[in-house]
Amino acid sequence: MDETLDIQAVLEAAIAEGRQVLYEGNVADYIPELAKAAPGSLGGCLIKPDGTVYAAGDYDIPFTMQSISKTFSLILALQTAGFNRVFSKVGMEPTGDRFDSILQLELKDWHPFNPMINAGAIVVSSCIRAKDPFDEFLKLVRKLCANDSISMNERVYYSEKQSGTRNRAIAYILMNDHILDGEWEDVEDILDLYFRMCSVMVTAKDLAHYAMVLANDGIDPTTGEQIVTPDIVRVVKTLMLLCGMYDESGEYAVKVGLPSKSGVGGGICAVAPNGMGIGVFGPKLNKKGNSVGGEKVIQYLSSHLGLHMLSDGKPYKSIAF
Amino acid sequence: MDETLDIQAVLEAAIAEGRQVLYEGNVADYIPELAKAAPGSLGGCLIKPDGTVYAAGDYDIPFTMQSISKTFSLILALQTAGFNRVFSKVGMEPTGDRFDSILQLELKDWHPFNPMINAGAIVVSSCIRAKDPFDEFLKLVRKLCANDSISMNERVYYSEKQSGTRNRAIAYILMNDHILDGEWEDVEDILDLYFRMCSVMVTAKDLAHYAMVLANDGIDPTTGEQIVTPDIVRVVKTLMLLCGMYDESGEYAVKVGLPSKSGVGGGICAVAPNGMGIGVFGPKLNKKGNSVGGEKVIQYLSSHLGLHMLSDGKPYKSIAF
Amino acid sequence: MDETLDIQAVLEAAIAEGRQVLYEGNVADYIPELAKAAPGSLGGCLIKPDGTVYAAGDYDIPFTMQSISKTFSLILALQTAGFNRVFSKVGMEPTGDRFDSILQLELKDWHPFNPMINAGAIVVSSCIRAKDPFDEFLKLVRKLCANDSISMNERVYYSEKQSGTRNRAIAYILMNDHILDGEWEDVEDILDLYFRMCSVMVTAKDLAHYAMVLANDGIDPTTGEQIVTPDIVRVVKTLMLLCGMYDESGEYAVKVGLPSKSGVGGGICAVAPNGMGIGVFGPKLNKKGNSVGGEKVIQYLSSHLGLHMLSDGKPYKSIAF
Amino acid sequence: MDETLDIQAVLEAAIAEGRQVLYEGNVADYIPELAKAAPGSLGGCLIKPDGTVYAAGDYDIPFTMQSISKTFSLILALQTAGFNRVFSKVGMEPTGDRFDSILQLELKDWHPFNPMINAGAIVVSSCIRAKDPFDEFLKLVRKLCANDSISMNERVYYSEKQSGTRNRAIAYILMNDHILDGEWEDVEDILDLYFRMCSVMVTAKDLAHYAMVLANDGIDPTTGEQIVTPDIVRVVKTLMLLCGMYDESGEYAVKVGLPSKSGVGGGICAVAPNGMGIGVFGPKLNKKGNSVGGEKVIQYLSSHLGLHMLSDGKPYKSIAF
Repeated sequence: MDETLDIQAVLEAAIAEGRQVLYEGNVADYIPELAKAAPGSLGGCLIKPDGTVYAAGDYDIPFTMQSISKTFSLILALQTAGFNRVFSKVGMEPTGDRFDSILQLELKDWHPFNPMINAGAIVVSSCIRAKDPFDEFLKLVRKLCANDSISMNERVYYSEKQSGTRNRAIAYILMNDHILDGEWEDVEDILDLYFRMCSVMVTAKDLAHYAMVLANDGIDPTTGEQIVTPDIVRVVKTLMLLCGMYDESGEYAVKVGLPSKSGVGGGICAVAPNGMGIGVFGPKLNKKGNSVGGEKVIQYLSSHLGLHMLSDGKPYKSIAF
Repeated sequence: MDETLDIQAVLEAAIAEGRQVLYEGNVADYIPELAKAAPGSLGGCLIKPDGTVYAAGDYDIPFTMQSISKTFSLILALQTAGFNRVFSKVGMEPTGDRFDSILQLELKDWHPFNPMINAGAIVVSSCIRAKDPFDEFLKLVRKLCANDSISMNERVYYSEKQSGTRNRAIAYILMNDHILDGEWEDVEDILDLYFRMCSVMVTAKDLAHYAMVLANDGIDPTTGEQIVTPDIVRVVKTLMLLCGMYDESGEYAVKVGLPSKSGVGGGICAVAPNGMGIGVFGPKLNKKGNSVGGEKVIQYLSSHLGLHMLSDGKPYKSIAF
Repeated sequence: MDETLDIQAVLEAAIAEGRQVLYEGNVADYIPELAKAAPGSLGGCLIKPDGTVYAAGDYDIPFTMQSISKTFSLILALQTAGFNRVFSKVGMEPTGDRFDSILQLELKDWHPFNPMINAGAIVVSSCIRAKDPFDEFLKLVRKLCANDSISMNERVYYSEKQSGTRNRAIAYILMNDHILDGEWEDVEDILDLYFRMCSVMVTAKDLAHYAMVLANDGIDPTTGEQIVTPDIVRVVKTLMLLCGMYDESGEYAVKVGLPSKSGVGGGICAVAPNGMGIGVFGPKLNKKGNSVGGEKVIQYLSSHLGLHMLSDGKPYKSIAF
Repeated sequence: MDETLDIQAVLEAAIAEGRQVLYEGNVADYIPELAKAAPGSLGGCLIKPDGTVYAAGDYDIPFTMQSISKTFSLILALQTAGFNRVFSKVGMEPTGDRFDSILQLELKDWHPFNPMINAGAIVVSSCIRAKDPFDEFLKLVRKLCANDSISMNERVYYSEKQSGTRNRAIAYILMNDHILDGEWEDVEDILDLYFRMCSVMVTAKDLAHYAMVLANDGIDPTTGEQIVTPDIVRVVKTLMLLCGMYDESGEYAVKVGLPSKSGVGGGICAVAPNGMGIGVFGPKLNKKGNSVGGEKVIQYLSSHLGLHMLSDGKPYKSIAF
């Protein structure tokens, strides 16, 4: 990355650029609560390991993590149950199918393809070893985001629980095929955990801090604490790079090149080189379920700051999505 | 990477380790010519950008590139037809299916998922703009490998042409669905080009040089020549990381973490950090079609030299395949 | 059919033949209650429209109908909701997939393929217009089987309800895609109806009477009452012929040639020419889920009595399954 | 069937009815030669076993059989290679997929589902044991249609051969998976036979005679000759009923109820009760590839003459397609 660049100016230009494409997207409406998000919102935050925070737009509006929770639950499952246990239950392969696809479960006669699709994340959640899994999850999120006030949105949780028929179907298939880990007698129990985790609220700034910890191999550089081991961080970042953006992951990797995870709440967190973390928020989604404005903001930052993981670190010309 | 390490010693240990798992694999036999490879062969080569060559085992035995040619043909197509043209014909998404799958072509009503599966590579080959595409291909391979004596194995080419019924089926589907680019009236013409490219012979050392050029963003550091633009290299390396190892790409990325491409001839090239390139050769393949010994060698190098792209650069403990 | 044949003797020979193949099958064990069936049971019954009953073996042992209920619920749905309503919700095409497949629901973006697979039968059940659908169902079954003592097996029902995770998954997919008819707010309600219907107990003799009514275009020839209209009977018999034997329907139609429906409880009912009905029972199932002994009994009857719907009515040589 | 009905009048009314729906269809254009058919053509013929011929409209315009040839080639393969040989190579199950689908070949790891889809018919053709298979085929067609002047349309054959890329793909998959029978070294040889058979020209009257022979269990009632054995006829008619109308077979069976086979040339032959045969021709096809006018004509005849195989033989009210 070119150190002489004015990151704040680039971030503000990125937000301005992102606003231009908001008209292309739509706020998620499969849950009534999500549909209430202010459609014009767009914000971003970039944190350097020295603690410098660059922020613009709606960087401090809280929203629910949704699928971004899949990375936290994967960390927690790997911490408590271990690599071998978790990956005896879920694969590591990207798939070209939709995030809520059940096709592979019938076609391939095997476990879910990876922890970033719904079926995989539900299996991963079932692996967590903890007396109160959600409580441990919340503690981990607060620590990785360096924000003790993070909590769950009760209405979104309740709304998910009421309307989550697709995830309920997935969970019943997993239970039927004995793929869930542990002694889950009732599908509702594992779904309750899953829906709670999806309903935890964060801001773009929270996500930037989280991404920064991942960028520093599990150490929070502002405190020096090793929160997650480098081995777990390496695995999680690899899976984010390969499957973090639903069935747009390949195109995003080619065009943006940062290990990232998005959620239908409109958030994306992106792990950047040089120990930097990026978080964005914009509730309007493209057809693949990714924040249309947020994706543009991160792409702008990647190309203008030269952040693509497989580039030479120099600014480069964006390829249109 | 820890600069104090004795790379030659690590490479030799890697080869020794690789020999231990050869019994698990089998030489490809779908083409009679391939079945003739010496099954016990195993070799590797690592080249640093200053030109230092580390080599061990059968690093200088020539073998046919097979699917590794998919990266060269992608480069040539991007150079001659441009990004927009090529990616209007083929996608960028990884897929969990086998490399010779035709499923997605019927299920998804779209172009092949990516340039690293057979269907995608045939489409990419059809995009190459050149009077004599194979001649241009061979020139590019020779330059990127810094070896002017590289040539095609006539018997393997003829053997592929005789027995390539699966690829022939794929090509007819692509022609039927009007996905091939340009004015290919006869499926045999595009297949002839494809089979020729697969039949070009290289050594592990050739592949290491090629990977080194990719690691240096298209510049051959031994000559200073920019052979491929950084924009093309970035795209190709990203697709190698996501889909370069058939339907084992995800697991390989998690466990090894280097943009790589394998071929059923037994070769793998891997792009390493710090401008280094790695090439390996071992004709015994695992069930996914990747060199079982070669994969082990690269994994050993990655963990002992700390090369995983998403790690902190320190040596780390390998995860068993 | 050759009227000079001694039907009772043929039936007894059929049962004897059927006993020879019982070793090939296994009693269904996906529900604990089903696994309790006496594995050596085998019985059959053929009723002529003049009321003559031929019976042999375990023709009067009660067992749960399971999938045979799909034909009764289809009749009831067509009677109460009409052809157009029902077939706006479910298709009429056979499918090569397993009876509990969910593949088509994702691949084809449409309603279940036909009323004889689980997904289709659940949708059909949701179409029934009645204050108490199960009560109406039971009345219909009793009338069509001419047996007022027919009732539900509480333990099987409870066992299905406890362990029916696959059907639960299917029902959630159907609800998620808004394919269920009417105002079913809770998936458990439609499943409760479905499981109750599957748990109704009948004997081979009951099924023979039912099949005889269908063979007489909806008229019970022993009473003269038109229980079902010929239009509905025509549709139901056609679907039985095409899809009544799970994913063995084609082979069974070629080799046996009678509109039939089987259930994993071990029963099969078969509609024969000349107004005759056949019912068999044998809990040992083949891999496709059909009674292995029962299928042999019906095939023997078909070939020795010349009952194949697409034959010339003369006895013919069986083709081995 | 009601014997007092004026069949000629009903047939003419059926043609008139059929003309009303021609606007819904389109002439096949995947082969240039087929696109030349006069779109307004519609004709039908019904032959009684006493030799009485009822005909109306364009009943004597020749057209290519296309998929109707699949029934003749199945008969010839069963005659020359036997039931066991043929059905070791192809299944008997209907499938919900398109006639030119290749999905099942990859998904199910087995032979083609049935002889009425393209993959199955190519396999069946490969089973024919004859010095000159096409010559034997032509002789059989001429005899079954009682028309010695039947011959192949050279231009359609050539056109098929030039443009049959989809079938070529299917044949290569079959050869690759070693599913073709016999020693076919070159895919073009089996395709040549297949394309020739598809290109044989018949009239609606020819098809009616053929269907009449099938309706009389293989005996031509006008000569008394047993051309095909009852065992083969039974199998072929069953497969026609289950899979003869592409992926509309189920709906057609429910609504029309006659063993039938259609071709994209616009022909349909239908085997009727009481030893009668029906042939129709109308080149405008619906989306499933069946003659839209022809289907309506047969449905009209079935409902007004009471021909549905699973009905009581009385006229019944048509269900709209």
